[in-house]
Amino acid sequence: MSGSSFGNILKITTWGESHGAAVGVVIDGFPAGMEICEEDIQKYLDLRKPGQSAISTPRKEADKVEILSGVFDGKTTGTPISLLVRNTSQHSADYNDIATYYRPGHADYTFDSKYGFRDYRGGGRSSGRETIGRVAAGALCLKLLEQMGIEVYAYTRSIGNVVIDEDNMDLNKVYQTVTRMPDEEADKKAIALIEECKKNLDSVGGSIGIKVTGTPAGIGDTVFNKLDALLADALMGIGAVKAVEVGDGIKVSQSYGSDNNDAFCIFDGKVSKKTNHSGGILGGMSDGSDIILRAYFKPTPSIARDQETVNKNGEDININIKGRHDPVIMPRAVVVVQSMVAITLLDAMLLNMSAKADNVIRFYKSID
Amino acid sequence: MSGSSFGNILKITTWGESHGAAVGVVIDGFPAGMEICEEDIQKYLDLRKPGQSAISTPRKEADKVEILSGVFDGKTTGTPISLLVRNTSQHSADYNDIATYYRPGHADYTFDSKYGFRDYRGGGRSSGRETIGRVAAGALCLKLLEQMGIEVYAYTRSIGNVVIDEDNMDLNKVYQTVTRMPDEEADKKAIALIEECKKNLDSVGGSIGIKVTGTPAGIGDTVFNKLDALLADALMGIGAVKAVEVGDGIKVSQSYGSDNNDAFCIFDGKVSKKTNHSGGILGGMSDGSDIILRAYFKPTPSIARDQETVNKNGEDININIKGRHDPVIMPRAVVVVQSMVAITLLDAMLLNMSAKADNVIRFYKSID
Amino acid sequence: MSGSSFGNILKITTWGESHGAAVGVVIDGFPAGMEICEEDIQKYLDLRKPGQSAISTPRKEADKVEILSGVFDGKTTGTPISLLVRNTSQHSADYNDIATYYRPGHADYTFDSKYGFRDYRGGGRSSGRETIGRVAAGALCLKLLEQMGIEVYAYTRSIGNVVIDEDNMDLNKVYQTVTRMPDEEADKKAIALIEECKKNLDSVGGSIGIKVTGTPAGIGDTVFNKLDALLADALMGIGAVKAVEVGDGIKVSQSYGSDNNDAFCIFDGKVSKKTNHSGGILGGMSDGSDIILRAYFKPTPSIARDQETVNKNGEDININIKGRHDPVIMPRAVVVVQSMVAITLLDAMLLNMSAKADNVIRFYKSID
Amino acid sequence: MSGSSFGNILKITTWGESHGAAVGVVIDGFPAGMEICEEDIQKYLDLRKPGQSAISTPRKEADKVEILSGVFDGKTTGTPISLLVRNTSQHSADYNDIATYYRPGHADYTFDSKYGFRDYRGGGRSSGRETIGRVAAGALCLKLLEQMGIEVYAYTRSIGNVVIDEDNMDLNKVYQTVTRMPDEEADKKAIALIEECKKNLDSVGGSIGIKVTGTPAGIGDTVFNKLDALLADALMGIGAVKAVEVGDGIKVSQSYGSDNNDAFCIFDGKVSKKTNHSGGILGGMSDGSDIILRAYFKPTPSIARDQETVNKNGEDININIKGRHDPVIMPRAVVVVQSMVAITLLDAMLLNMSAKADNVIRFYKSID
Repeated sequence: MSGSSFGNILKITTWGESHGAAVGVVIDGFPAGMEICEEDIQKYLDLRKPGQSAISTPRKEADKVEILSGVFDGKTTGTPISLLVRNTSQHSADYNDIATYYRPGHADYTFDSKYGFRDYRGGGRSSGRETIGRVAAGALCLKLLEQMGIEVYAYTRSIGNVVIDEDNMDLNKVYQTVTRMPDEEADKKAIALIEECKKNLDSVGGSIGIKVTGTPAGIGDTVFNKLDALLADALMGIGAVKAVEVGDGIKVSQSYGSDNNDAFCIFDGKVSKKTNHSGGILGGMSDGSDIILRAYFKPTPSIARDQETVNKNGEDININIKGRHDPVIMPRAVVVVQSMVAITLLDAMLLNMSAKADNVIRFYKSID
Repeated sequence: MSGSSFGNILKITTWGESHGAAVGVVIDGFPAGMEICEEDIQKYLDLRKPGQSAISTPRKEADKVEILSGVFDGKTTGTPISLLVRNTSQHSADYNDIATYYRPGHADYTFDSKYGFRDYRGGGRSSGRETIGRVAAGALCLKLLEQMGIEVYAYTRSIGNVVIDEDNMDLNKVYQTVTRMPDEEADKKAIALIEECKKNLDSVGGSIGIKVTGTPAGIGDTVFNKLDALLADALMGIGAVKAVEVGDGIKVSQSYGSDNNDAFCIFDGKVSKKTNHSGGILGGMSDGSDIILRAYFKPTPSIARDQETVNKNGEDININIKGRHDPVIMPRAVVVVQSMVAITLLDAMLLNMSAKADNVIRFYKSID
Repeated sequence: MSGSSFGNILKITTWGESHGAAVGVVIDGFPAGMEICEEDIQKYLDLRKPGQSAISTPRKEADKVEILSGVFDGKTTGTPISLLVRNTSQHSADYNDIATYYRPGHADYTFDSKYGFRDYRGGGRSSGRETIGRVAAGALCLKLLEQMGIEVYAYTRSIGNVVIDEDNMDLNKVYQTVTRMPDEEADKKAIALIEECKKNLDSVGGSIGIKVTGTPAGIGDTVFNKLDALLADALMGIGAVKAVEVGDGIKVSQSYGSDNNDAFCIFDGKVSKKTNHSGGILGGMSDGSDIILRAYFKPTPSIARDQETVNKNGEDININIKGRHDPVIMPRAVVVVQSMVAITLLDAMLLNMSAKADNVIRFYKSID
Repeated sequence: MSGSSFGNILKITTWGESHGAAVGVVIDGFPAGMEICEEDIQKYLDLRKPGQSAISTPRKEADKVEILSGVFDGKTTGTPISLLVRNTSQHSADYNDIATYYRPGHADYTFDSKYGFRDYRGGGRSSGRETIGRVAAGALCLKLLEQMGIEVYAYTRSIGNVVIDEDNMDLNKVYQTVTRMPDEEADKKAIALIEECKKNLDSVGGSIGIKVTGTPAGIGDTVFNKLDALLADALMGIGAVKAVEVGDGIKVSQSYGSDNNDAFCIFDGKVSKKTNHSGGILGGMSDGSDIILRAYFKPTPSIARDQETVNKNGEDININIKGRHDPVIMPRAVVVVQSMVAITLLDAMLLNMSAKADNVIRFYKSID
């Protein structure tokens, strides 16, 4: 229930502010005996790093991960895995002004309302750097899921009004474009849009698509802790996300039951569905089809234009925010989304192991 | 973490199957000393009840609530409040067939996958009757929120392609139309649409809007357990919901920062916002503006048309589902949505009381 | 975290006051597919029931359990199991006086301090009747544990200064004596002591011993949620318990390492211990030996003698408590202790299933 | 529920192995705005440090704490406080042997049983170094409690058969003796006993007493999460603790109700008790008297004598453990006990703020 923890059996706790000494995560409940090394984690952190291309912030951060605990002889030990990334590229002076006023679209005012004051440097706790912990934790979960035949894909689905062609995308090419769009044409258009945004000292929103393949049926709970509710929590818990869809999402509200119901059929000897309007989840549990999700992101609130706001003395003022910001968040958020989905799914799968009494009995009989 | 509990400090646990002896809820952590009686709860249950109009299922259920514990001398005692509603209108025989096959769009297959078998009568645990417990718990939360000046409104926003005029709606009139649309004209159109659905042996989706007024700034957490993430979890945890929006929702993905940022201003001596694209939540915490949400529902999967599916022997079959079902779920789901939002918000508010050390010290100094 | 819930994966929530409509429990997370019927539960409730012998309260309560949900076709369904027992033998008038003052040794004053008022009838929520829910939940856990070869024994170890001979006890005879002492001689002495107590309008304390056989090694966690910490929580959470020992308990404080260390040895081809000072738990995890615990109970605070106390007006007064009370609590508490140990252990075992990555992978590979 | 987290609203998560890179803790949910600096924490860590006297291990460890997050401008920010202590005095080679066998009294065998392998260096996760995180977290809690007029005292009560005179102790002198016994005479006797132990290559057990003054009545819950159950969990969760007593503890099992009941009286205009057999807790809630607890520790299992055990090949062997160990644990455990009690109590106090509806309403009305 603490505000920086996520998960149940597998619980991650992230910590750290943008301009503090470091950011990190503690992963507790991760199963013992999986091989892991810093490179396994670093490769995901590198996908989140700023300064990867002309369209993201020019800040350069090494973001080198250090494994402090929970790994021995190259394998997870079952005890908490503590991962740390030092903060190195801190221009705290850039942020002195914002101590005195509330940036529109940011958490400055709400932080002050809740806690009475805030670490205003670089957004403090509400900085995107917090997601380093999520990605580091996600790296471990993705690796274990993979060993069970489960792949979690995330990709930039749209930037502003540029939407990819999802019917013809190749999800193995996501990280080959700077926008993380698995669609070269859309990528080009989106880059043009972003360049225009930068020229206009503006930012733009977008969306990220998710596809999970290989999930067995029955994962998730039936009333609360439904798999879709857990995933909605996970996605809406990413800064800037304002909407989440499962399967056909908003479209279902204009559908008829005769269209929206996915007919079951036997395919390859197994129960399958002829269509997948449900997005792979029925009654809160995975149905064995691909899990299909979308998360919608608002434009980065940090823009270098003049904006109206108020200061802490209760006066109306005009501001112009300094700093090095991303005009679009999607390219760097893709791996964050992928990570949160992996953490959520693996946690639900661990819990699911005790769903049947027969399995519990068999498990313990086999230990004897 | 258990699958039928929701909330942290204030925790509700619902139980019960559609055709079992009863359904109910245990509410733990509810503050002591609030006046409550069965009528306070019944009035919300009556809004959820089937058989209220020609457009809902003709099933008649009394749904009379019984307070079994946690209330003494007409007030909550601080101990668990156990509420029970007996099941009375059970035509279990209607459901004998469905024991053998998987209804499209339902949880039959996923239940069997997870647990090995299921109580198939009337949908068992995945029946809408489970929400009786949520509404009963919501009744208490709504009452306490009201005493703090907080109102939670929910209303049918659309049915199929009939969308209300949200700019001119009167939220005090929600329960004056059978569709729960606070828009008489849309109500008429929607009724016509529903009648057509019934004629076609079909069902249709829709959406529910939510508006919460009076929430102080600072409620919710900053990383996980963000207020919007908790609410997304709460809404996506309602059966049939496939998408959730906060504030401008999906629209933000095509917005520019210069448009989407809500300028702060001083209004009436207080920090306010000129617009509310954020839907009242910034950085996971309430910002003092109205909280604006939308939940999108798929069409009821139970339709009386022929459908393709498979049976438990792994054979492709055709089925035709008997039973008395709602062609649209929105009219009865409105109060469920309202309840889940109230439970989520009150829980977050209770937790928020210890956010500042000064408040903690002052609280305990005042006890002395 | 709510005050009336216990457990993690397997979570029980008890509810109900002594003189309210009913008491009960909701068990969530219990594995699906175990056969269970009301008789399986009733047999444990009957062991807890008052009026079983001359040494317990003459109150007669039927305490008939009703299964309201979570069981279908005679088997657990994986969904919440709601169990209810109606209150029938209520002499509420007996308790009118105690509304106005604080009974020594009872929770009257602390309830009022916390909640501002209390349901004073029969102790309200702090009544021993609350344990009906624990015993009902325990019945299910004991049954599943048994199917895994695990037996949980509890027995009256001492009443006042009468202590049984634990070296020569037969744990299958616990329920053959009215004191629940598996030692006929001690039973007789204890009965004499109790009769004297009754004559003196007094009550007396005692202790309960616990032995669990068949637990595999490795159950429990290593830092917090150690198996002994969980069990200490479970036992100290039973009203009237003031001390808990694991293995040699208090004695270890005067032991030397050379004596207290249990040497490992190979016995029957398996790792065993030559002695069991540890009580079957090392480093928070079961070590495969018998789990040995003791819980110490204070004398029932309700005695029919004159006592000094204060009333709600802040005046010193003398009182004489009416009502029908147990001069010793042990005989009826034995099954409560047995239940709490079973619930705790089963929950820890369910969680333990995901401790090794290999097991997780194997489990899901086998589903395919 | 994760095995390395403790607490509810205020949650600590410790991490780290004895011979890994570092050990640490993340404290989430700590109220914002309390002044804290590294010295505030270091002073408690120094009390736990090895090498403080001739009677503890000669290992020298700097144990310098670093605040990595959650503190800004010298005050807690309400966000997770991450504290880290680097491991510096690692003689890992000392431990190569123990990789192959199971030390009696240690967690080696149970770790292998649960996780399949273990970080054997210096005990790995089960090393006493893990408690650094608890003490660091405790430092913050002790400081906040102090500001509310609550003092948590812990002291060595006994070492072997040397027991202090608790009737005449001065709890402000605990840290003036090397044994942490607030009794100079007992301290001398205990030192002599310890010297003898060292000569005998042996270790000895002992006990720690706890006294908390200033707690308001009503803290803790009524059924589960009773304050005494939470404290029992906290204390039994400290390595080597095998018994926990509240108030009169084990003695109550031989008491009569007429003796054990604490009469209430009016003292200084407030409800008080004439005696304190209850140890300050009635019905799971604090009663306003001093909270009295005792924790009993087994002798350190690491002794330099020959011992019998088994190796991983399943062979009976004789071993002789190398390394630098404490012959008694009490002197260094006192501050760990004090910390765990402080964390437990503060968490329960934060939760208690929402117990009364009136307080909740008043709190939020005052924000307006």
